[in-house]
Amino acid sequence: MNYPLQQWIYIKRPQGRVGKQHYKLVESEFSPVLSANEVLVEAKYISVDPYMRIQQAEKNNWEQPHPLNTLQGAATVSEVLESNHSDFVVGDYVLGYTGWQTHAKVHGSDIEKLDPKKHDITTALGVLGMPGRTAWFGLMEVGKPRAGDIVVVSGAAGAVGSLVTQFAIRNGCKVIALAGSKEKCEWLTSLGVYQALNYKDYSDAASLAIQLEKLGGVDVYFDNVGGMITDAVLSVLNLRARVVICGQISQYDGGLDSPELAPRFLHQMLYKRASIQGVLARDYTHRMDEMIKHVGPWVEAGEIEFKTSIVQGFEQLPDALASLFGSNNMGKAMVKI
Amino acid sequence: MNYPLQQWIYIKRPQGRVGKQHYKLVESEFSPVLSANEVLVEAKYISVDPYMRIQQAEKNNWEQPHPLNTLQGAATVSEVLESNHSDFVVGDYVLGYTGWQTHAKVHGSDIEKLDPKKHDITTALGVLGMPGRTAWFGLMEVGKPRAGDIVVVSGAAGAVGSLVTQFAIRNGCKVIALAGSKEKCEWLTSLGVYQALNYKDYSDAASLAIQLEKLGGVDVYFDNVGGMITDAVLSVLNLRARVVICGQISQYDGGLDSPELAPRFLHQMLYKRASIQGVLARDYTHRMDEMIKHVGPWVEAGEIEFKTSIVQGFEQLPDALASLFGSNNMGKAMVKI
Repeated sequence: MNYPLQQWIYIKRPQGRVGKQHYKLVESEFSPVLSANEVLVEAKYISVDPYMRIQQAEKNNWEQPHPLNTLQGAATVSEVLESNHSDFVVGDYVLGYTGWQTHAKVHGSDIEKLDPKKHDITTALGVLGMPGRTAWFGLMEVGKPRAGDIVVVSGAAGAVGSLVTQFAIRNGCKVIALAGSKEKCEWLTSLGVYQALNYKDYSDAASLAIQLEKLGGVDVYFDNVGGMITDAVLSVLNLRARVVICGQISQYDGGLDSPELAPRFLHQMLYKRASIQGVLARDYTHRMDEMIKHVGPWVEAGEIEFKTSIVQGFEQLPDALASLFGSNNMGKAMVKI
Repeated sequence: MNYPLQQWIYIKRPQGRVGKQHYKLVESEFSPVLSANEVLVEAKYISVDPYMRIQQAEKNNWEQPHPLNTLQGAATVSEVLESNHSDFVVGDYVLGYTGWQTHAKVHGSDIEKLDPKKHDITTALGVLGMPGRTAWFGLMEVGKPRAGDIVVVSGAAGAVGSLVTQFAIRNGCKVIALAGSKEKCEWLTSLGVYQALNYKDYSDAASLAIQLEKLGGVDVYFDNVGGMITDAVLSVLNLRARVVICGQISQYDGGLDSPELAPRFLHQMLYKRASIQGVLARDYTHRMDEMIKHVGPWVEAGEIEFKTSIVQGFEQLPDALASLFGSNNMGKAMVKI
């Protein structure tokens, strides 16, 4: 008996906001016959992440763009339906990179078994997965937070930002959390931040900068968004400030291919002997254990809050990806199949 | 008998290019009576440096601007005329920070004795002084050059840039030297650079970027100038490139108070996991010995070329400062009294 298969194929490069029109839903079926060490999995949760839009930029000067007419790549949490690998049995939950499809045959070495008794399986896509790793190493190794530092986090209610916020608080820092709604700011306030600011209350970078300066300037800036917020922060860095560039999501709708103009600021780096460093999750993949060792116990003890924005339905994947750029989600966005 | 004294007083904040109109030449005389441990010195060489213009910016977000109606501060090489300090005798040459004046009474602890038999006394303002220190520590500690790296230096024929260029070559790097004239490029070529490029041959950042990419991209960027050149370099960084912000001289004529607009580039930092770090000479003052230990023997052996652009005449100081922003000097600019 063949299995039915649904796949979202990436067919068209977006110029602005990505959406359904850049994908095609393809239905087919496939034979469940497995090769040696293969496992057949069914996706339960499929991830949508901002980096997917970077990979769709034309002039990304990064790596080859995501190829057209191929399955959209993505991390997934899946259930094992059949196994030809000694490490996996039917019913196991696994983390993999099987993309936007309902089923996949994967080699056992390309998936990782999850323990649903220990952690909710969605955490593998969030706090104990790629976003958690990015937040932990970006803040700790590049941001170098010290107790008493003012740590400004943009996109603070997002998958990475909400973890950076909490890690910084645990390190004794005063966090200024920037987010785009009253509801997000209320959540961030409940987490114990020094100040939660709704950037939409500020008409321009200058007025936001004045507010940040009043609050004591910026020792560490963990930047997920770029744009106007970043213009403001870079103008009020403290001496030897560390700027972590983790994302520039405000630019992903088109500003990567045709960058916006913004005020030059490199002289500020000189005055303040400040540093800027770009970080990517992949650089720390091999150190996942180290992050889990620190963060895992906090998650088990309920000491870290991680929200998920879960949309139900495989057909929702393109819209769920688009929603990342509309600033309504809190925490990690994913689609439940 | 009193001594005659000439002083250049900074009287007016420049909006664009600094010049004579922002200074007043004041003549007076002073008594040579010295307090305990004081020394009377006569300036022989007075320095003009780009940082002086930064200190004249209004919104410099750095430190207090240079106060109006006070003596222009500057490093000087002077001769001791009278001494009330056991470490100094008449005829000694000393390095001090006595500013734009012909004579000064200084405490012995504020000056440093030079050895004219060992090094030409002008080197204390250049290769073995502040510019040398900036070049050495900026390149070695922040740029972290490795043999084989492509090191791009802007303002490569200047006081700092020409030293960075030679230090990088000694470290086995391939230097792409950017300067603003054929004559400068010829000199840089004679120093053994990989490529000397006259940035004036490129109409915009995009065309310069194409050339840099053809040459292999950028592992280390030592930036003295900012502006269009920096826009080009930042678009073609290699993986884990290090950008050293030492100066932004293209912006000093007015762009510090009212920054120009330029394309956003922080997404490039992300793709390349590159870093930017601002450096200032003062942060390494206490490590001067360490630099001299490395660079001093090269200077003594004639293995480092250092040019000086020396203008004769105390009255030339404001024009000499202005000349820094007109891109005609090679090496260290100073005024001989």
